[in-house]
Amino acid sequence: MKQSQLFTKTRREAPKDEVAKNAQLLIRAGYIHKEMAGAYSYLPLGLRVLKNIEKIIREEMNAIGGQEIFMTTLQDPALWKKTDRWAEENDNAQTGLPWFKTALTGGGELGIANTHEEVITNILTKYVSSHRDLPIYAYQFQNKFRNELRAKSGIMRCREFLMKDLYSFNADEASFREFYEKCAEAYLNIFARAGIGEKTYRTFASGGAFSKFSDEFQTVCEAGEDTIYIHLEKRVAVNKEVYTPDVLNSLKLEAGELKEARAIEVGNIFPLATRYAKALRLTFKDESGKTHTPHMGSYGIGLGRLMGAIVEVLSDEKGIVWPREVAPFYVHIISISGGNADVEKEARRLYELLGEHNVDTLYDDRDVRAGEKFADADLIGIPTRLVVSEKTMQAGGVEVTLRGNGHTTLVPESEVVERLVRG
Amino acid sequence: MKQSQLFTKTRREAPKDEVAKNAQLLIRAGYIHKEMAGAYSYLPLGLRVLKNIEKIIREEMNAIGGQEIFMTTLQDPALWKKTDRWAEENDNAQTGLPWFKTALTGGGELGIANTHEEVITNILTKYVSSHRDLPIYAYQFQNKFRNELRAKSGIMRCREFLMKDLYSFNADEASFREFYEKCAEAYLNIFARAGIGEKTYRTFASGGAFSKFSDEFQTVCEAGEDTIYIHLEKRVAVNKEVYTPDVLNSLKLEAGELKEARAIEVGNIFPLATRYAKALRLTFKDESGKTHTPHMGSYGIGLGRLMGAIVEVLSDEKGIVWPREVAPFYVHIISISGGNADVEKEARRLYELLGEHNVDTLYDDRDVRAGEKFADADLIGIPTRLVVSEKTMQAGGVEVTLRGNGHTTLVPESEVVERLVRG
Repeated sequence: MKQSQLFTKTRREAPKDEVAKNAQLLIRAGYIHKEMAGAYSYLPLGLRVLKNIEKIIREEMNAIGGQEIFMTTLQDPALWKKTDRWAEENDNAQTGLPWFKTALTGGGELGIANTHEEVITNILTKYVSSHRDLPIYAYQFQNKFRNELRAKSGIMRCREFLMKDLYSFNADEASFREFYEKCAEAYLNIFARAGIGEKTYRTFASGGAFSKFSDEFQTVCEAGEDTIYIHLEKRVAVNKEVYTPDVLNSLKLEAGELKEARAIEVGNIFPLATRYAKALRLTFKDESGKTHTPHMGSYGIGLGRLMGAIVEVLSDEKGIVWPREVAPFYVHIISISGGNADVEKEARRLYELLGEHNVDTLYDDRDVRAGEKFADADLIGIPTRLVVSEKTMQAGGVEVTLRGNGHTTLVPESEVVERLVRG
Repeated sequence: MKQSQLFTKTRREAPKDEVAKNAQLLIRAGYIHKEMAGAYSYLPLGLRVLKNIEKIIREEMNAIGGQEIFMTTLQDPALWKKTDRWAEENDNAQTGLPWFKTALTGGGELGIANTHEEVITNILTKYVSSHRDLPIYAYQFQNKFRNELRAKSGIMRCREFLMKDLYSFNADEASFREFYEKCAEAYLNIFARAGIGEKTYRTFASGGAFSKFSDEFQTVCEAGEDTIYIHLEKRVAVNKEVYTPDVLNSLKLEAGELKEARAIEVGNIFPLATRYAKALRLTFKDESGKTHTPHMGSYGIGLGRLMGAIVEVLSDEKGIVWPREVAPFYVHIISISGGNADVEKEARRLYELLGEHNVDTLYDDRDVRAGEKFADADLIGIPTRLVVSEKTMQAGGVEVTLRGNGHTTLVPESEVVERLVRG
């Protein structure tokens, strides 16, 4: 894409009421627009990142047998009353999923969905009757709405946010547990591909009413809201909320080997046992005709949360640093022409050449000074920068700089495409 | 995909309260699940169709310079009061966009977005200052919420529905009008690719306060809610709401040459002049430094509405008939093995072979009778059916049947892949 055609521009300042680093940088670079506390619109660059994150998650969920669906936001209270999750006193306080509610013209109350356990379980009562119908792993990417008293942390804790939620249904606990571990592996793949694998730990956390533990995926970062205790060698951690001698003992972890850190919860997976299936009468018959209740799990990743965490963890004093798989573009071409038409021509030729090889490229064709182009490129954070100038043309090449470590090399013109396509 | 792994099944009956043919067929075939009147979840097959429609629209919007974004659902009333579209008496009655409203924990009212003119205009005040910043064409795919008193027509008129909405901003009326015509062309491409091009007419409709006319795209169908008057040769129509001698005169159409028909509005494009930009103070300076207000248009397509219209128009007494570009799969392999392992093996081989050639294939590997497989295939409506049986294997080929016209041929085994990849 030509940068002159991108409708956003970089800004010197973020809005005064925006305190989170992730949102400050993303707003300044033109990725997002703040509509109100806890609700951000995604502009062209921001949506490209969000879609890349979605693609990674979709691939990993499909690889473990996930089937993608898209459930509704509007919710009938009758369904949620069956599981005792409609009344505010049950909900806000206990589950951290405070409802937005609304009134239907003509009478009646509706909910704006904050999660979908009830919805998928109810749908499956139409399709599950035999053990042969299981297992089922259904997931979606869908906006969730939570009526938080305070929205903070930029795009990491919103009142409205895009979430991947997968729900698993297995015939018994053993097969549930097997899938649960497979999904935990898939989550580690996702965070590795998103560039924060090294800083992300599978973390023992509270299991609620259904299980001793749930598992969180926590990314070490000062901006995080959680405190965890990490075992660096075993690459596991324990959330402060369950950090007791008894728990450490049961996990065979020594307090002295653990290191305290602040962290961002970028994902969680949760055993739900038979709570929702029982309440909503989802059953199946085994080979002998006996009736059973499926074992269920839920598996969430907030896409904006993950995007914000990447920004928090990897940015530097100049701006954002995107890992390759989530970056809005892989290559940023900057022409420093100083009015020399040959330089612009060469930059445009390179842009078209990379396009022919399907290399996602942003081409800064704007008529602004070199310093502004470099500062904007640093802020926007595309992984690979190509500089074309009189100097590089005289040297018969292109200057290639990696945003991550600043490493610069002059690559001969004949090798540029091969270098970038190969990666 | 193997059909045994698809978690949905076909059903003999649709829910009793479902009167629309599109929803009846889509529910019976396992595409969607009705959550309540006017709100449907999309199951794996249904989401595949929705995503194919999304892909067609995205390609056509990108081709005319559209930049994709994703705005918020939660809305601050302050923004909408500036354009006088918050108060119910202005909104419900005049614009047909009845709000769902909700209360924020801690105080304050929020809206659940029914459209986004105000939002995009407000965002652009941050990015537009000069004539060089225009034109801007921004679009999104996003759930819209409308508090309809009655939801009917299945997935064609919902309280919650996925919509593509594009907003155009041009420096003057002439360049606005040029883009408007370009978008009208793109819409005709979209409906042609979606398989309803021949039945869809660009239709003169009421322009509201800002323009003499807007343009609807109406697909002729008895189930439609609108009445239009079609000029078959000129391929245009006039909506009944503006069908007066004066209007016909101004359009140079003779009443006697027009044919009355019921039709479904599958899209609309709308000149908005400077109403929103003026109210929200979006301006730009021309070369001489003089301040102007951009000319705006909005361009909507409801994806579920379009999907429902395709079902209404193309289905037959046996079930759904999908056009190739929107079909959930291109090929449906049916094995009639009667316990012959060689038949299953050949069907599986074909399935894998087509997969290697990236032909989207559903393989009915279920252990059910032939009659059930054929009836389900007819109901599901995948364009091309391959039957593998002892009979076809003895004849050295595969039976290929087109769902649209029932045309059947025995294709020699060696030619199957080439025939399907070529299309």
